[in-house]
Amino acid sequence: MSVTAAQGFVAAGIAAGIKASGAPDLSLVATADGRPVPSAGVFTRNKMTAAPVITTRAHLEATGGHSVAVVLNSGNANAATGDAGLAHARTMCAAVAAELSIEPEQVLVCSTGLIGIPMPIATIEAGIPGVVAALSHDGGEAAATAIMTTDTHAKLVVIEGDGFTVGGMAKGAAMLSPNMATMLAVLTTDAEATPEQLKAALVAGVADSFNVLDVDGCTSTNDTVLLFASGLAGPVDQHVLESSVAAACRSLAEQMCGDAEGATKVVRFTVTGAADDAQALIGARYVSRSNLVKCSWYGCDPYWGRIASDLGSCGIDFDPATFSVSYGGVTVCQGAIDADHDDTAVAAHMAGRHLEIVADLGLGSGRATILTNDLSHAYIDENMGTS
Amino acid sequence: MSVTAAQGFVAAGIAAGIKASGAPDLSLVATADGRPVPSAGVFTRNKMTAAPVITTRAHLEATGGHSVAVVLNSGNANAATGDAGLAHARTMCAAVAAELSIEPEQVLVCSTGLIGIPMPIATIEAGIPGVVAALSHDGGEAAATAIMTTDTHAKLVVIEGDGFTVGGMAKGAAMLSPNMATMLAVLTTDAEATPEQLKAALVAGVADSFNVLDVDGCTSTNDTVLLFASGLAGPVDQHVLESSVAAACRSLAEQMCGDAEGATKVVRFTVTGAADDAQALIGARYVSRSNLVKCSWYGCDPYWGRIASDLGSCGIDFDPATFSVSYGGVTVCQGAIDADHDDTAVAAHMAGRHLEIVADLGLGSGRATILTNDLSHAYIDENMGTS
Repeated sequence: MSVTAAQGFVAAGIAAGIKASGAPDLSLVATADGRPVPSAGVFTRNKMTAAPVITTRAHLEATGGHSVAVVLNSGNANAATGDAGLAHARTMCAAVAAELSIEPEQVLVCSTGLIGIPMPIATIEAGIPGVVAALSHDGGEAAATAIMTTDTHAKLVVIEGDGFTVGGMAKGAAMLSPNMATMLAVLTTDAEATPEQLKAALVAGVADSFNVLDVDGCTSTNDTVLLFASGLAGPVDQHVLESSVAAACRSLAEQMCGDAEGATKVVRFTVTGAADDAQALIGARYVSRSNLVKCSWYGCDPYWGRIASDLGSCGIDFDPATFSVSYGGVTVCQGAIDADHDDTAVAAHMAGRHLEIVADLGLGSGRATILTNDLSHAYIDENMGTS
Repeated sequence: MSVTAAQGFVAAGIAAGIKASGAPDLSLVATADGRPVPSAGVFTRNKMTAAPVITTRAHLEATGGHSVAVVLNSGNANAATGDAGLAHARTMCAAVAAELSIEPEQVLVCSTGLIGIPMPIATIEAGIPGVVAALSHDGGEAAATAIMTTDTHAKLVVIEGDGFTVGGMAKGAAMLSPNMATMLAVLTTDAEATPEQLKAALVAGVADSFNVLDVDGCTSTNDTVLLFASGLAGPVDQHVLESSVAAACRSLAEQMCGDAEGATKVVRFTVTGAADDAQALIGARYVSRSNLVKCSWYGCDPYWGRIASDLGSCGIDFDPATFSVSYGGVTVCQGAIDADHDDTAVAAHMAGRHLEIVADLGLGSGRATILTNDLSHAYIDENMGTS
């Protein structure tokens, strides 16, 4: 179901021939009746912005946030493709619009795949009538499958609110998926909301989910999260809507983290006791990007010395005397020296798939959590070549 | 020769039993006549400062930069060891001082190895008479060998100035050497210079060598670079001294980069055309820490799209329209789109051990180079466990 769980949406995913493997690579999500509905998006802050991001932003602005559909392809990111890439992104929207008898600006576009390779636009154009013809209420899973790249499974979510539904699909995570370099997510709801309300819900939801996901520190050129609202379930309290959107975003972010390339661990790494939340976030992100720490997680090694070293060198306030670390709730270090603890309990926690690690700076009330993973041989295998 | 190449210095390295393997693990460098000479140091900026760093800083301050010797051990970093660690660092200096009949403050100390493990201080104390007895003009290589941890070879340098010599030894690189977590370097010269002149030469030399080396972004708790001057070769122009010290530092930094854990490539990554040098450095360091980029180097893949994406997202001024990348002098991307180029020449460059990559932002005159390497399976093998 995913993006078609909420009333008023249809979707499809087909193999259009963009991927040499013949795997599904072209998706479409649209309103069931072909009418524009309130919609909103949040996008990568990478200045190396991909053509579909530029195009989708412009289309949302042109319509005041009223869209009919989003067309998505995997197998090519249409990034670093210059003016030709921009023309191709617009062509994709125009081709869908022609099939649906709507305006090109009412169609949004997302791409994911290799950077710097010209789009096979003739192949995509040839595929569009087929994906439009395949649109159905049952097409959510096919749409989610056709945006996969190195993902090993489709990422779907359905959150049932009080009288309304939020559904969604996503692929990848940060720029951890090297052969397409993107994370994309499309959410739909049948709640009634303005584009501004959707944007507010999206910004809040993303802050606590995708934006705290850090697999390899690489921000993609194509990151896009979209939210469409059919309104068929009627008005909803804004806080309730935001809470459901946030829950959907969190679920998709956790699915991405668990399916990140080569990941054997899903790690919630929290910094507490920082001078303020901003410092906690700097520290949490720094440790989450530390290859030495990530390798020790892969080896199930509770080597807190590397965490201490990273937090001491990342530029935030730090005092060894008040520093402690716990793994799965067991304190292993206190005052930056080894604390008496139950080695067996720590080893059991480290052997599991889900790690909960808290570093307490003991300085203030600042706190931040990053959702991350380990660094394994398989990550290198996936990323050492593009062919 | 290394640290004993300059007139007036002796050194030794022995196996004291700190390492379970029985490999050499205790080094000493001293003036040949046992008298204090001008000396200076630069140290890690990690706030999780190790006990030997705190002790060496205090001793240099107490003597106004006049030291006789430095004792170094591998196999244990004496970091995150609390008050006991500080007492152990002082004990090491006092034990050497007793053997040499000098003051404890005239002895400096460096340690490298695992973080958070109490020092086997009785073993070290028992070894000190032996390493003092072994001091000789021929002991430079033995001293360099006994500070190795995951290094595969000793790192030595001799720079012949006009009538004077700078010699040195080093181990590790940044915090890429996980089982000891440190880089250490000791330089000696027979030039006559004050502690202030030595400090100036060291700060300048380090800026362009160790401080532009970035293997894994992890700053160690123990980084220390020391310089001793016997004065036996007489006074030297400060600029000439600085130039020789800088050359010695560059050589040792390049040796570290080439011997970094798992490294198959030594990469000079340069950002030019940045708004200013500071922005160039941010960009160069960001790319050098990017696992996606490092994996592509390991795979000999000139995937410039990842470099473009990193530079676009690292917060510096960036415009795709003026962006270009070259590998070994061959421009592969111009205006952030693929440039016609000689694929064979690029493939030949990528297949080599030394890569020269330049990313030109085309915005200003800012420039910075980082010396870095690739990310391979062997890095993970080295770092996934401490045992």
